[in-house]
Amino acid sequence: MKVVLIGAGNVGFHLGKKLHKVGVEVVQVFSRTKKKAKKLANKIDAKPITQLKEITTQADLYILAVKDDAIMPIAQKLGKTAIKSRLVVHTSGGTNTANMSEYLNHFGSFYPLQTFSIAKKPNWKTIPFCIDANSKKSKQLLLKLAKKITPKTYEINDEQRAILHVAAVFVNNFSNHLFHIGATICEQENLDFAILKPLIQETVDKLNTGTPAEMQTGPALRNDKKTLATHLQYLEKYPDFKKIYKALTASILGSRK
Amino acid sequence: MKVVLIGAGNVGFHLGKKLHKVGVEVVQVFSRTKKKAKKLANKIDAKPITQLKEITTQADLYILAVKDDAIMPIAQKLGKTAIKSRLVVHTSGGTNTANMSEYLNHFGSFYPLQTFSIAKKPNWKTIPFCIDANSKKSKQLLLKLAKKITPKTYEINDEQRAILHVAAVFVNNFSNHLFHIGATICEQENLDFAILKPLIQETVDKLNTGTPAEMQTGPALRNDKKTLATHLQYLEKYPDFKKIYKALTASILGSRK
Repeated sequence: MKVVLIGAGNVGFHLGKKLHKVGVEVVQVFSRTKKKAKKLANKIDAKPITQLKEITTQADLYILAVKDDAIMPIAQKLGKTAIKSRLVVHTSGGTNTANMSEYLNHFGSFYPLQTFSIAKKPNWKTIPFCIDANSKKSKQLLLKLAKKITPKTYEINDEQRAILHVAAVFVNNFSNHLFHIGATICEQENLDFAILKPLIQETVDKLNTGTPAEMQTGPALRNDKKTLATHLQYLEKYPDFKKIYKALTASILGSRK
Repeated sequence: MKVVLIGAGNVGFHLGKKLHKVGVEVVQVFSRTKKKAKKLANKIDAKPITQLKEITTQADLYILAVKDDAIMPIAQKLGKTAIKSRLVVHTSGGTNTANMSEYLNHFGSFYPLQTFSIAKKPNWKTIPFCIDANSKKSKQLLLKLAKKITPKTYEINDEQRAILHVAAVFVNNFSNHLFHIGATICEQENLDFAILKPLIQETVDKLNTGTPAEMQTGPALRNDKKTLATHLQYLEKYPDFKKIYKALTASILGSRK
């Protein structure tokens, strides 16, 4: 199978390396940034390209690992070439594949449900891969490819993927921001953020003991008004954090049985 | 050293077992609930008691592992006995020790910065222990005791502990509620919450790669208005979750450089 990888950012970089490692032939790596295209392409014996018109029409699969708002414009351009009849997928949690039907005959999604950073090597075998396509044949091809990367493969349609993406924002982006708030508060008071890390790890470990609702503790759950008032008073100097504190406290209070 | 443990809830239960394990003599376990007092006391060769007046005045240390709002009333009662001249500490993140000076001569805090559940055995050697007391001698005694439990001991005063407690609410209570939101959304849509767990673990693992601010990703950080609008639209049916989404998004947007 010949693959063209379009995008060499966080997802493209790691996915490209992994595909090469499991023996998939990545023929071209496209990035508008020459340096990025070269950096990845050189690692995986692919050709770096910086112009969409250089993309070969002879590959079996085109993976769009680009920003959400770049997906449709690129799909449109590819659809004006012979690639219209090839399989084109995106790696986005937040983009409907159905929109691609306007430009392409074969399309889908090849979405690793994980957060990627260039600096950190992903542990692929733990990463759930969500695949979708507009034909059984395409789904089978994507499933086969995903299985080379991880045992955790899921068929997830547009609607489900959109919802997973919302959930992912809460558990990943937003919890990371809560960690940032903890770090900010510690820093302001000359306390080492590291003191909170075991607590953070335990919060996650507990998800294997029971549901998050069962594991909930703290002043909001106890409706401990005195502590809540003290905390809100302290947060006067952080208006954004105070709003978050209030919204989360109200939601926890509302979730009590 | 003879210890009286007052409270046999999540913290008292695990702390009592650990003190016994490291060779500290816990002479009495107090709980208003006889069953709880007995359950713990029987495990650690202590005497279960359910009346404060039964508490011996001959111990070296009295640990109040009770709810925040029970600490001062109990301190007041103990202060009317010979225990007034003994060392009395609480295990709370949210309670000033200074308030105990009204009733007691020797007082302090013995605060394990962790979230405890009866069902889950804590990994003590990773847990930071924050100690404080109103005399050097008492501090030394608490430090010595804490060091039997964990290598991670910190001297943390009232002000610092109050701030750590706010930070702990954000990183533990609130992030757990975000996991609950993720689980709720998945459940409503018949998706398995387990699909999000690798993402959650990675969010935490990344704290060892850089600061939370450096690790932030997602539509809020990118100010991806289209995705933000789609998500808020989806969240119409969860008003509390929508408020949280808005507050966190605004804070992430505000934190961008």
